[in-house]
Amino acid sequence: MPSLTIGEHLVKRLAEVGVDTVFGVPGDYNMPLLDIIEDSGYMTWGNNANELNASYAADGYARVKGCGAIVTTFGVGELSAVNGLAGSYSEMVPVIHIVGAPTTKSQQDKAMLHHSLGDGDFNVFVKMSEKISIATAQLTFENAITEIDRVIQTAYTSKRTGYISIPIDLIMAKVDVPAVLPLQLLPAKNPQVMQDIAIKKIIECISHAKHPAIVVDGCVLRHHLKKEVNDFVQRSGFPTFTAPMGKGAVDEDVPNYRGVYTGNVTLEGIAAEIEQADLLIELGSIKSDFNTGNFSYGLDQTKTISLHSFGTTIYHAEYPKVGMVELLPLLTAALPERKSTLTFAPRIRPAPIENSTEEITHNYLWNKVPEYIKPNSIVVAETGTSEFGVFNMQSSKDTTYISQILWGSIGYSVGAAVGAAIADRSRQLFLFVGDGSFQLTFQEISVFLHHGLTPVIFLLNNDGYLIEKLIHGPERDYNNYQMWQYSKTLDFFGAHLERNTSTGCSKVGFESKVSTRQEFEAAMDSISAQPDKMHFVEVVMPRFDAPRELELLVATSENR
Amino acid sequence: MPSLTIGEHLVKRLAEVGVDTVFGVPGDYNMPLLDIIEDSGYMTWGNNANELNASYAADGYARVKGCGAIVTTFGVGELSAVNGLAGSYSEMVPVIHIVGAPTTKSQQDKAMLHHSLGDGDFNVFVKMSEKISIATAQLTFENAITEIDRVIQTAYTSKRTGYISIPIDLIMAKVDVPAVLPLQLLPAKNPQVMQDIAIKKIIECISHAKHPAIVVDGCVLRHHLKKEVNDFVQRSGFPTFTAPMGKGAVDEDVPNYRGVYTGNVTLEGIAAEIEQADLLIELGSIKSDFNTGNFSYGLDQTKTISLHSFGTTIYHAEYPKVGMVELLPLLTAALPERKSTLTFAPRIRPAPIENSTEEITHNYLWNKVPEYIKPNSIVVAETGTSEFGVFNMQSSKDTTYISQILWGSIGYSVGAAVGAAIADRSRQLFLFVGDGSFQLTFQEISVFLHHGLTPVIFLLNNDGYLIEKLIHGPERDYNNYQMWQYSKTLDFFGAHLERNTSTGCSKVGFESKVSTRQEFEAAMDSISAQPDKMHFVEVVMPRFDAPRELELLVATSENR
Repeated sequence: MPSLTIGEHLVKRLAEVGVDTVFGVPGDYNMPLLDIIEDSGYMTWGNNANELNASYAADGYARVKGCGAIVTTFGVGELSAVNGLAGSYSEMVPVIHIVGAPTTKSQQDKAMLHHSLGDGDFNVFVKMSEKISIATAQLTFENAITEIDRVIQTAYTSKRTGYISIPIDLIMAKVDVPAVLPLQLLPAKNPQVMQDIAIKKIIECISHAKHPAIVVDGCVLRHHLKKEVNDFVQRSGFPTFTAPMGKGAVDEDVPNYRGVYTGNVTLEGIAAEIEQADLLIELGSIKSDFNTGNFSYGLDQTKTISLHSFGTTIYHAEYPKVGMVELLPLLTAALPERKSTLTFAPRIRPAPIENSTEEITHNYLWNKVPEYIKPNSIVVAETGTSEFGVFNMQSSKDTTYISQILWGSIGYSVGAAVGAAIADRSRQLFLFVGDGSFQLTFQEISVFLHHGLTPVIFLLNNDGYLIEKLIHGPERDYNNYQMWQYSKTLDFFGAHLERNTSTGCSKVGFESKVSTRQEFEAAMDSISAQPDKMHFVEVVMPRFDAPRELELLVATSENR
Repeated sequence: MPSLTIGEHLVKRLAEVGVDTVFGVPGDYNMPLLDIIEDSGYMTWGNNANELNASYAADGYARVKGCGAIVTTFGVGELSAVNGLAGSYSEMVPVIHIVGAPTTKSQQDKAMLHHSLGDGDFNVFVKMSEKISIATAQLTFENAITEIDRVIQTAYTSKRTGYISIPIDLIMAKVDVPAVLPLQLLPAKNPQVMQDIAIKKIIECISHAKHPAIVVDGCVLRHHLKKEVNDFVQRSGFPTFTAPMGKGAVDEDVPNYRGVYTGNVTLEGIAAEIEQADLLIELGSIKSDFNTGNFSYGLDQTKTISLHSFGTTIYHAEYPKVGMVELLPLLTAALPERKSTLTFAPRIRPAPIENSTEEITHNYLWNKVPEYIKPNSIVVAETGTSEFGVFNMQSSKDTTYISQILWGSIGYSVGAAVGAAIADRSRQLFLFVGDGSFQLTFQEISVFLHHGLTPVIFLLNNDGYLIEKLIHGPERDYNNYQMWQYSKTLDFFGAHLERNTSTGCSKVGFESKVSTRQEFEAAMDSISAQPDKMHFVEVVMPRFDAPRELELLVATSENR
């Protein structure tokens, strides 16, 4: 029988779900596992600045590559990561959290070890993580192989967080394993009869509808159904909208793409198109407050068909285990030929650039910046101002959008961008982050440099927590903080030190502050000419200027 | 009946346990509470850079002032703080965690809100915090007053973390309260008969002992028993040692103070003094691995008396509810007159400065730096190298030591130092932090500046995670990371920007790098002459040099 260490099996299984970079921070209970990663030849160590940032990186990475992984150390390390991992659970992003724990013997002895609560209880942290994981395991020599496989498989197919605690003595423990079968990574088959009925029923609804419409949302991205969705959109020819969490799932160049729909926060005119529909087909919808204009979204249930990850609803009827991964391509194939009669009014666009000022306003920024974003890019937008800014931004083809609209943890974008950038170095990454959020996690900028990554970072500096000010207390001291010299960030993190540049640190292009449109455009021209470098643009913006969508949302969310 | 808002009652109760600064980060579910804090006139808002740092600050603050408090927002904010709060729980530091939650109605409706897991369950995060709290409460209009009082009282008297979740609509809700009685903040009375017997028994043991010795440990500091312990030490005249977590509890100038005792890691000669004792009186001991030289500590139980927070053990007999707060002064009073026969050999000191190099070694640093630390200072030492360095550092009188020897979360010291500094602005604070730990939490340096605090910060730069390298993988990539321009930290955080200096930002004295002893001493002379300013000293140290105690500990902890 082939024999390998438990740590090696774990790392091989991660590779099998597409993981080639593991994020995290070293700690004395996990280091032998890091040896295996470093020695594997096919796995990169993420080298994050702290565990929270590492969890964000694993999440951003998973959104691009399909699955993420993070290694932390018992107690201190794992708890620092739980916010990010809860975010992955919430937003349906599969991330495997591996925790290096004290030896089996120390745990049995209930020893009073560092990184413990001092009470001999070594189960307390796994119990905390159980609440934010779809599957958890505390490995023993006997269960290690089956438990590793179960957790990874469950997390991957459910698109949720998984947790594995491995005592340090087991990492290098050799186990005999029978012929290792591949993991089962496809979702369970839909019940055939129920699915056939559902398809027939949906086709029937479509054939009776005069004005059907489609809304594409976040779960489509979680299941990597971009191709299947675009086939459906194009073959049906129905007017198609994306919810904010679905941004990037639909090719915005197709004639039936109509824009972003988010209830009352939608551009005027777009919402009216939805309201006149007599059938709404929702694909992978996530009806959270910020994704739906505070629940002002959608049509009556009697006009709505919803294809979900693990179920389908047709009007008021539920088809519990009929998931969209299998259903959607079958539905597309069953569609009648596209009705050639469908024509579309010109698409409604956001207000054009208002030229009365030289300041870099949100109206200017989100209209202007798409000119510089090539197809197949990655756009990471921070929770808050930036997230609302990208809603209606003109998208280049095949560009991926990453934002945390449901979980909404400020600071997320910086870590997530590191993960997304390392997940596919061939795609240019644009990060939009406000000064407030930046302060929480900005040491992760150092990690871009360390790995030689080449993102374009926009630090939107409006001197305070703008989204908080709009919600409550615009003049309060607690919504303000120390002003930093943001434009010196790359220099501070050693971008120009020989100690770093001699070991693969990113080359730096633009790193300065812009306060006028002219300066912004000059910066962007320079950046466009140097795609192989990292750039940092501090964009000085008016203190209380905000994207229209954010202002509208706040107006409807008082005391939610 | 007097009427006030629930938020006002909460803030008043915090003031009652000595809290005048509340740490945290604003969020849309907590801002009305921040209004109350800002408007109170007696409470300062901590203005931390992120929630983890805020939890460390609340812990550092509590170690100086007696109790700490932190406000976060539901989900994202509270989970970012759990590592720090678990540390407070573990190390017996009372910190009240207040979480602003969605409205009562939204919770009842199971709305799919931002910062939730999207499943309508609003109890999941409190269940996580239950594992690391001595008391938790989810406030309702009906229970708010009693639950606030119960949690604060329990946390304060137990010296553990407490958790209060307050739906945002309740913060401003007016309640009629009967005459508000003061909180009950003293521990429960000891059972009188049992206590009398225990005292009699201890005195009997002492009278039979030829070589009694005392070890003072961390829980003495948690219960603020410095005066009571020093009375006991001085009246008894017994040779007295401190464990690392008890550093600072005993006046090191008294003739019977003998040094730091930590099992095999103790300076040679000091351990021998313990071993020849025939009675060991332990005061407030915490027998964790790093506090006891990996459990190589102490005498046989048949020679040991232990006074604990909530119990006493005399040899093998337990006196469960006889706590040291009440017992210790009674014991001191019952002591026989000091035996004048007790004399002491010269105290054993760490090896003196080795003069063969100009480099700043640990041997040099910890011998030299005490010359610059005045009485009544606060010394914060990071987990890892610094924590082991301060073990045997000569202490100035009434200086407080803050370190996380049991929980050991790297990065803790930066946040804790902010809390400790703001807890008592009249005391000069010295922070010792390594480059590795600094990278996790260093944005909190900005918060010192924002509040106009004047710490002296030593950034010990040895280019990598030294403690990890000593344990495992000295040449591994994962123990190294990007080199930063640490000495520019204060400048980067805007120490010299008019926008900050016009609003109370600290004045800056020394801010540079030192690589030789001459440079170090020149820097220290300059710093000593400017106690009203903030200083930042990047101390460049040899890559693999470590304090003797750290090397010894690591040698005995392989695979723990």
